Amino acid sequence: MSLTNLAAITFDVFGTVVDWRGSIIEEGERVWRKRGLDLDWAAFADAWRGLYQPAMKRVRAGEIEFVKLDVLHRQNLDQVLEQFGCGDFPEHEREELNRVWHRLQPWPDAVPGLTRLKSRYIIGTLSNGNVSMMVNMAKTTGLPWDVILGAEVARQYKPHPDAYLRSAAALDLPPQRCMPVAAHNGDLLAAGEVGFQRAFVARPVEYGPEQQSDLRAEHDFELVAGDFQELADQLGCD
Amino acid sequence: MSLTNLAAITFDVFGTVVDWRGSIIEEGERVWRKRGLDLDWAAFADAWRGLYQPAMKRVRAGEIEFVKLDVLHRQNLDQVLEQFGCGDFPEHEREELNRVWHRLQPWPDAVPGLTRLKSRYIIGTLSNGNVSMMVNMAKTTGLPWDVILGAEVARQYKPHPDAYLRSAAALDLPPQRCMPVAAHNGDLLAAGEVGFQRAFVARPVEYGPEQQSDLRAEHDFELVAGDFQELADQLGCD
Repeated sequence: MSLTNLAAITFDVFGTVVDWRGSIIEEGERVWRKRGLDLDWAAFADAWRGLYQPAMKRVRAGEIEFVKLDVLHRQNLDQVLEQFGCGDFPEHEREELNRVWHRLQPWPDAVPGLTRLKSRYIIGTLSNGNVSMMVNMAKTTGLPWDVILGAEVARQYKPHPDAYLRSAAALDLPPQRCMPVAAHNGDLLAAGEVGFQRAFVARPVEYGPEQQSDLRAEHDFELVAGDFQELADQLGCD
Repeated sequence: MSLTNLAAITFDVFGTVVDWRGSIIEEGERVWRKRGLDLDWAAFADAWRGLYQPAMKRVRAGEIEFVKLDVLHRQNLDQVLEQFGCGDFPEHEREELNRVWHRLQPWPDAVPGLTRLKSRYIIGTLSNGNVSMMVNMAKTTGLPWDVILGAEVARQYKPHPDAYLRSAAALDLPPQRCMPVAAHNGDLLAAGEVGFQRAFVARPVEYGPEQQSDLRAEHDFELVAGDFQELADQLGCD
């Protein structure tokens, strides 16, 4: 398939651009253990993330109005703290812990790869994360986005078709000219169903060393790359 | 007033960051005169811009649903071409001419000033222009935005309060921590009415050498600067 008309590349962020699990474990052990949360941070990160899809599903199904991911994360955090026997953890510290998602660290190839891709294409987020989360993460890590798109702008969560289509519409681009990149087969399958070309970038340790799914591209995506530098190579970026 | 808690600076774009009038005149004389539009480009730019506020007013008043500025610009272009005796100018060329607003050039201090401000603050657009217009303009000129906010994201045009408040809400910031910058007294007055600190940057030739209004700050704004480099000086940016 020809990618010659490609104008923009939009990125899934959690797992694809940033290492959410490693970042939560690192901050948990460095900061939060001393502040009273002496627990298994890998298990805590996995449990917190485990509530992510069920929370968004209620929005996608129309059961609740769209709310930002920060709000869903906070509800999920309260639930996970209870599960881990930390139900008395103070309110003002919960708010700060909830914002760990604004402080996630990118995979090592992300900033250099995106910088190369930006020289030739519009690069944007197409994340379920909210605008402030994406902006704050970029400010502390140097992710060089041209534009923050995704769930909050579209008022709908991926993999609902509107999340992809409204993001392309904000750029005035048809799906064929606006390529989502993700480390998740399901995300890209959903994008393909509404006409997008897609690039898969494997992140085989996103869920830790025991990761079982999304180890490789399982479908006939238009591009498959090992990391963002390889993606930039394949797209002819200097 | 203390600006110590300032986290983000949001910019009016037309006139404040980019020279819309000079850019339209330049492209008109370089490109469009040869393509059949042999007319007074300064008068044409002024007439086109003259229909800007009346068009947005219909949205602000709730008479019509929100539509992107590209759509309003195109309706206004058709009207101005008719006025200038160019009613037979072809459709496909109108679309391309309409996108001159995606190709506006910044004032000379804008890119270096914004680059300095970006090192310390979140910098975003708070324009009535749509997302694709802001992104395309930035890609061709190097405007280093962290985030594209404003009318399309807020679904409302300035100076309606929602245009300011929803942009701050997207950053999770109270108005006090999110300062609009504009070359227009009216824009900043409206922002002040809903709690924003404001910076005025004079652009005394935005409307050409005969400009009569907005020659200087006419109210007690928190900051007043001659250009973006001076604004960066006042805010202590390297």
